[in-house]
This record gives sequence, C-alpha cells and structure tokens, in this order.
Amino acid sequence: MARCQGRVVIIGGGPGDPELITVKGLRALETADAILYDRLAPKGLLENLETRALKIYVGKRPGEGLPQEEINRIMENLACRGMTVARLKGGDPYTYGRGEEECMYLIERGVECIVIPGVPSYVAASALHGVPLTSRGVSSSFAVVPGKEAPGKPDGRRVKLEEIAKSVDTLVILMGASASAEIAERLLKVLPPETPVAIASNVSTPEAETVVTSLEGLRELGINGMVKSPAVIIVGEVVRLRDKLYREA
Amino acid sequence: MARCQGRVVIIGGGPGDPELITVKGLRALETADAILYDRLAPKGLLENLETRALKIYVGKRPGEGLPQEEINRIMENLACRGMTVARLKGGDPYTYGRGEEECMYLIERGVECIVIPGVPSYVAASALHGVPLTSRGVSSSFAVVPGKEAPGKPDGRRVKLEEIAKSVDTLVILMGASASAEIAERLLKVLPPETPVAIASNVSTPEAETVVTSLEGLRELGINGMVKSPAVIIVGEVVRLRDKLYREA
Repeated sequence: MARCQGRVVIIGGGPGDPELITVKGLRALETADAILYDRLAPKGLLENLETRALKIYVGKRPGEGLPQEEINRIMENLACRGMTVARLKGGDPYTYGRGEEECMYLIERGVECIVIPGVPSYVAASALHGVPLTSRGVSSSFAVVPGKEAPGKPDGRRVKLEEIAKSVDTLVILMGASASAEIAERLLKVLPPETPVAIASNVSTPEAETVVTSLEGLRELGINGMVKSPAVIIVGEVVRLRDKLYREA
Repeated sequence: MARCQGRVVIIGGGPGDPELITVKGLRALETADAILYDRLAPKGLLENLETRALKIYVGKRPGEGLPQEEINRIMENLACRGMTVARLKGGDPYTYGRGEEECMYLIERGVECIVIPGVPSYVAASALHGVPLTSRGVSSSFAVVPGKEAPGKPDGRRVKLEEIAKSVDTLVILMGASASAEIAERLLKVLPPETPVAIASNVSTPEAETVVTSLEGLRELGINGMVKSPAVIIVGEVVRLRDKLYREA
C-alpha cells in the first residue's frame, strides 16, 4: 500500500530529438507537478514544454550535480507531499539508465513508481544513421555493451567483449568514444581488421554525424582522439547496408 | 535526386500501447496521405487517429496478406503520385522489422525513404514488466536473439545461442513462445537450471502478463504449450530485481 499520496513517473526521454519521446512520456511530463532532469535528458524537451511544473536540475556528471541519494530523497519528499513527480531520463530508463535504482529506493519507502520506456540511443542511431541492427541474411542477433566499466569491478564480472563479439552478428558499444582505441584493439583479436564499423555521434540532434570505417580505422580514430562523444558504435556487416539506405533519394 | 515527388516514412509504432509511439511517429501518421499497416502494428493507434488518409491493410502472416513485393509496389506507386506514405510497423523498423528491405527497394527506385525509430517490444517489456536489461552490479551487457530462424539458413549463419548465452549478462529472446522448450534445452547446456527467466506476453496491451520462472520452468512451460505468444523472454539475474520493482506501492 502506498505510504504517500503522490507518485514518481520515470520517463525515458529518448535519444535527444524532443519529438522522439513517446506520446505517453510527453503527457506524463505535461501533467507532472515537478520535473527532475539531468544533463542526459533531451534539452529541447523542457524548453518547449507547456507546464507550470517545478523544474529541478539534478545534474549528473562526475563532480557535478546532486548525488544519487539526494535525488532519491527529493523525489520521495515531493511525492509524499502529494505531487506527481516526473523523473526525465535520456534514452530508456532500464537500459543503462539506472532507473531501477531510483524505483527500488522509492518502492521500498512506499512511494509508487511507474516507468515509461523510451527509444534507446542505439535504436535511434540505427534508424536515423541507416544501419539496421538486424537484416535478413546479414544479421539476426545483436548485443549491446558499455565502452567503459566501473573501475573496481571484479574480473569475473567484467564484460566479455571478445566472446560477445565472436558470438553475435552485430555488436553495439555505448559510451565508448574515449575508450575506442582500446575497444578496437580488443576486438581486433577476434574480428578481421576490415570489419565494418559505424560511429554515430550526437544521435538525433542537429550535431548528428556518422563516420563509417573499419575496426582498424576505429583504432586509429581512437588513438587520435577523433571519435566524437556521445557515440553509438555499431560493428558488423549491417554497416555495409548503409550505402543502400542512405543514398540521396 | 528523387524521381518521385512523394515519399515514404517508415514508422516504428512501438510495442502495442497506442501511446508508446513517438510524438514524431504520431505526427507523421497524422499528416500522411496514405497509411500502410499490417497485423503487427499497434491496433489502437489507427482506430483513434484523426486522419483522412487512405488506410491500406497489407496483412503479413504466412498465407495471409500481400506479398512483400506487392507492398513495395504500392508504396512506390503512391509516392510517385506525390503522396506522403506512412508505413506503420510494430516495435522499431530496423530491429527485426524488415524496414531496411522496404527502404532499400524504394531508394533504389528513386523514392525518398525516411525512418522514425520506435520503442522495441523488449525495451517496453523491460520497463513495464519490471525487469531492467542492465543494472549496476547485476548486468552490464545484453543480447537480443530471435527464437526462430528461417528454415533454410546455412549452419554457419545460425544464431550461436549457447555462446551468446554464456557471454552476456542478460539474454533476450523474441518470437520464441512456440519454440521455448527447445530454446530452454539449448540454454540448459550452458546455464544452471535455476537461472531466472521472465516471460512477458502481450507487452503493453490489456492482455499483458508476466510469468517469472527458471530455465527449467521455461522448458516445462514450453513442453506444455503454456508460453503465450507474442512473448519477450528475458533470461538472467536481472529477473530477480522484479520483486523489488513490482511490489504494490
């Protein structure tokens, strides 16, 4: 039973384009009494929103913004004053969004928590940059991995990048711009150097950019610090379809 | 350069709930001159749509509906009459949606083709059924595979289910309801029988249902034909988080 009258709605804001939020997500934002957002939430979304809601920027970057515990307490506090609190996140809340951590905190304390899914950045990268994740005869499986891992992670828990790369048709790497040289080197141990790679930067924003290269090319771009962040890196034969999907019509 | 004045917009309609389409997708539907949809497109979406567009049901089930070539030709024909054609698909067009096949056909013939991403069923399953795809300390990688493959597929091109299952933290199986006993048996070769499994059926519709079980349980449900279709099957430790994310608030 809910201890508080209000509730928290964790909303996947999508990849960046304010129109790539879901209709349900937008309605939840419009009707919220308070909106908590951080630097990963689509910027244009709040600027044009018709709302009288209390807007709270909670940051979130190393050394910037409020610590997670503080964000949790604000949400709990507002919900327990009877408010409907919208917690706006980039992408999808349950795909590297840590929405589950916030929801668990709230539910444990008797605060209702609802989650509205969003279009993840890699799904948008695929559609908007012309690189399908699957395609008949080319790719029927894909995996998504982070480009960076928490420093203290025990060895047995680390992402098995090489094994994953060997077993799926398409590999998607998120948050990998700054580590791309190292990632490419690990992948070169199990995949041919000419394996096609697409780097989709700033997906669905006016700064969007696609670079098509090879695994060897990714390594070189990485060494030279030329992979723009935030980037979705897609590795596999599907990248070759881009030519047929992106020719000027 | 475009040979035809019209264009085709391939729209990801999302998992089923009419409000889980993106704002951009909905606007494209509302402004289209013609809408082509099949049985996988969210049903409620067209019923409540304010539009005067020509609506064309193109089916798509073995033995039902128009063949792909015919769908392609209708889209080309309408676009070349200057119409803006919306091609509505379930989920996301470039994730098992075959949107790329339609887009390639059109672009090859000088018809402009635009793709609007959608929330894939497994992303919605995760958010709405309380099973995050990733979570700090539990899962940092995931893979998505189909439960069924084309019969004539050469061995070397088949999904390496066991290898993928061994290498990622979370495994998502789509379109696997009818093959779930066989899938479970293959997974039992590489994962412990108590590995947690969530079966999310009819995601984001009024018939939505979640069954939480183990790999051994999935095998038994499969043998007894008790896995409801369409289902998203999620395998991995993340399933255990559901208890903390779904307690009645």
